[in-house]
Amino acid sequence: MTEQKKDSLKKPLSRREMLKLTGVAGLGLLLGGGGASGLMALGRKSSLAALAETTPDKALPFYGKHQAGIITPAQDFICFAAFDVTAGSADDLRRLFKNWTAASAAMAAGEMIGEHNTTLNTPPTDTGEAAGLTPSRTTLTFGVGPSLFDGRFGLQGRKPKGLRDLPAFTGDALDPQWCGGDLCVQVCADDMQVAFHAIRNLARIARGHAVLRWTQEGFQRTGRADPAGGTPRNLLGFKDGTGNPDPTDAVLMDQTVWAQPTDGPGWMAGGSYMAVRRVRMRVEVWDRSTLKDQEATFGRHRDSGAPLGSRGEFDPVDLKAKSADGQPIIPATSHLRLAKGDGSQQILRRSYSYSSGLDAKTGQLDAGLLFISYQRDLEKQFIPIQERLAKSDKLNEYTVHTGSAVFACFPGITNGGYIGDALI
Amino acid sequence: MTEQKKDSLKKPLSRREMLKLTGVAGLGLLLGGGGASGLMALGRKSSLAALAETTPDKALPFYGKHQAGIITPAQDFICFAAFDVTAGSADDLRRLFKNWTAASAAMAAGEMIGEHNTTLNTPPTDTGEAAGLTPSRTTLTFGVGPSLFDGRFGLQGRKPKGLRDLPAFTGDALDPQWCGGDLCVQVCADDMQVAFHAIRNLARIARGHAVLRWTQEGFQRTGRADPAGGTPRNLLGFKDGTGNPDPTDAVLMDQTVWAQPTDGPGWMAGGSYMAVRRVRMRVEVWDRSTLKDQEATFGRHRDSGAPLGSRGEFDPVDLKAKSADGQPIIPATSHLRLAKGDGSQQILRRSYSYSSGLDAKTGQLDAGLLFISYQRDLEKQFIPIQERLAKSDKLNEYTVHTGSAVFACFPGITNGGYIGDALI
Repeated sequence: MTEQKKDSLKKPLSRREMLKLTGVAGLGLLLGGGGASGLMALGRKSSLAALAETTPDKALPFYGKHQAGIITPAQDFICFAAFDVTAGSADDLRRLFKNWTAASAAMAAGEMIGEHNTTLNTPPTDTGEAAGLTPSRTTLTFGVGPSLFDGRFGLQGRKPKGLRDLPAFTGDALDPQWCGGDLCVQVCADDMQVAFHAIRNLARIARGHAVLRWTQEGFQRTGRADPAGGTPRNLLGFKDGTGNPDPTDAVLMDQTVWAQPTDGPGWMAGGSYMAVRRVRMRVEVWDRSTLKDQEATFGRHRDSGAPLGSRGEFDPVDLKAKSADGQPIIPATSHLRLAKGDGSQQILRRSYSYSSGLDAKTGQLDAGLLFISYQRDLEKQFIPIQERLAKSDKLNEYTVHTGSAVFACFPGITNGGYIGDALI
Repeated sequence: MTEQKKDSLKKPLSRREMLKLTGVAGLGLLLGGGGASGLMALGRKSSLAALAETTPDKALPFYGKHQAGIITPAQDFICFAAFDVTAGSADDLRRLFKNWTAASAAMAAGEMIGEHNTTLNTPPTDTGEAAGLTPSRTTLTFGVGPSLFDGRFGLQGRKPKGLRDLPAFTGDALDPQWCGGDLCVQVCADDMQVAFHAIRNLARIARGHAVLRWTQEGFQRTGRADPAGGTPRNLLGFKDGTGNPDPTDAVLMDQTVWAQPTDGPGWMAGGSYMAVRRVRMRVEVWDRSTLKDQEATFGRHRDSGAPLGSRGEFDPVDLKAKSADGQPIIPATSHLRLAKGDGSQQILRRSYSYSSGLDAKTGQLDAGLLFISYQRDLEKQFIPIQERLAKSDKLNEYTVHTGSAVFACFPGITNGGYIGDALI
């Protein structure tokens, strides 16, 4: 047998082909015993079709008007990576973006990268750890940081006005190992191995053009552990994201999340600005404070997520309500009150919890929140909110911001185009 | 309203009670559109019952003949923690084990810890981040390291013969930050937030008695991304665990995993010895090697997992097979050949992949395998295998062992008893 023939025998099945072969077994597993026999009445075909439509494992489109991963309902996991570009020219950078585009489209679809080019005598075109796995709603969201516009690529004149490193906020304790970056990729998926696979392959493909600067893995409760899909809780035990603007409200999203053509520059129209903060939570200190203190800190009840004094998580927030002794029921220094302000600034939060072992210096858990928000304008939205919080938020007793970056996330990529093609 | 009354209104629902309230909504979400209407024919009750029986989110028993988490089919996530005991006496240590027992039983059942003791004016008895989540097949597996028998607790005479730090293996590059520990807890669950919650609460409860020494989070592909439930792949893209002994074979488990009464000491009968190694994978180097080299390194085909020269993952391993040129088809230095040896030593592997950001020194991904194996006897099983591998395994070009520990994991806990009650 020739080497070539051996190769073709070994050509990997695409992740989807594998899935087709295992689909029926998969259904059996999911519905098992009573469920499977009960479903017989429906006929196998229709029940399979129903499942295929409704399992949350399907592929999300990579191409579109906006990048996926911004208003997309949050997946269970994130692998976030910031890169520094080492390529010498705009041409090299463009080549990287093109290579990333092809790989990203394949990964979002749950396919192996470049599978038809795999031979025994070359390194695999896909590292393989996601072989056979579902697309898992993978999204890959790309952005560029302020440092990309420093002159290396002739982009000085195209830098968005508001894209610059965040001001130093009161209490910041930033560590350069979790700050900045020329580029970022936010990979989210309902499977951690699938998300890791994406970052690892993008880093592999970038060799010679860009190197990893920092990464952070994160998680939310899985959809499976919370089948009703309530607001996820952060590691302080409180629901996080209740006050988010409704991502299905297209008008509101245009007002708060998507950069508009009139905002300038043109290449960002339909994109969004990302703020990312690595917020360590001093969980050991938090765990020693009373439930009353904890609820006063957030301004919400822990169990229900309701604003203090209310019953339901989504009850309107009444900042004017006072208790019998004349004190505001939602305290002046509570996170809720300060984050809300006069309500004129809104941001779309899309955060994940992280747990990264122990802090070598203190021996305490290095765990917390990888805070990510998207907004149309950093200076009008994220910065004033964070200034209020940094100054007075009672939550600051229990948190410390160790990482920080901002990125201009491109508008959507059209099929046939490539990441950042309006910019470079 | 008195403070006390307010408290009782705020008493948290148990995680299960919350679940009951949301069960119907959860079903709607899971089966959605076509699925839900199709299922109407079955009647809501029977379909709910079928789901309840078959979802993999149910509680696994905490009490039993053996500890759960050893021969239990691997859950999707691990949070592993090693503790150092700071308590001064055997009584204190016993108290810690008793407190851990009550909390662990609650967490395995998906219940809030000590929920009836929660008041507004004390720190919560449960940190809350798993509230409302399913039990997610949580297991908590406890063990003691060699250092616990150093005389602090009068246990010198009760130390198992084979329980000592592993010998230095060729190529070891151990970092004290990931080595040793007086105690260990292996928490596994199908949800990362649920697993984190367990370690965090055990550390909280241990305050004054024990402190975290090291922790490591890990993951496998989720069951949802791999509905057919194949052998998981490691981060080098190869299936890992194909050759594991069958955990449903009780005779084999007695031979290979469970310490027997005749092995001594008596308190370990029904327990098992754990070896844990933090194995960093040099993925960047691996990704530059050819598929042929990679397959020769493992001795298996990447896609199928079959031994080289065979077709099926579970085909018998023929170490004597030679190619036309007289060379062994499964190379002498392949991981498969060296791990198998003459087949007389078997271990039960239960490993997870990890991804812990970047290595600050090299800027490369700190990712790899949290290798865990269970065996009846470390000296007769794990050590000879690892000696062979350390000396000759071609995989050593791509891996480096950075952490190491061994623990004697107790036999099962009986309802009414407590962790380690046969020892202390």
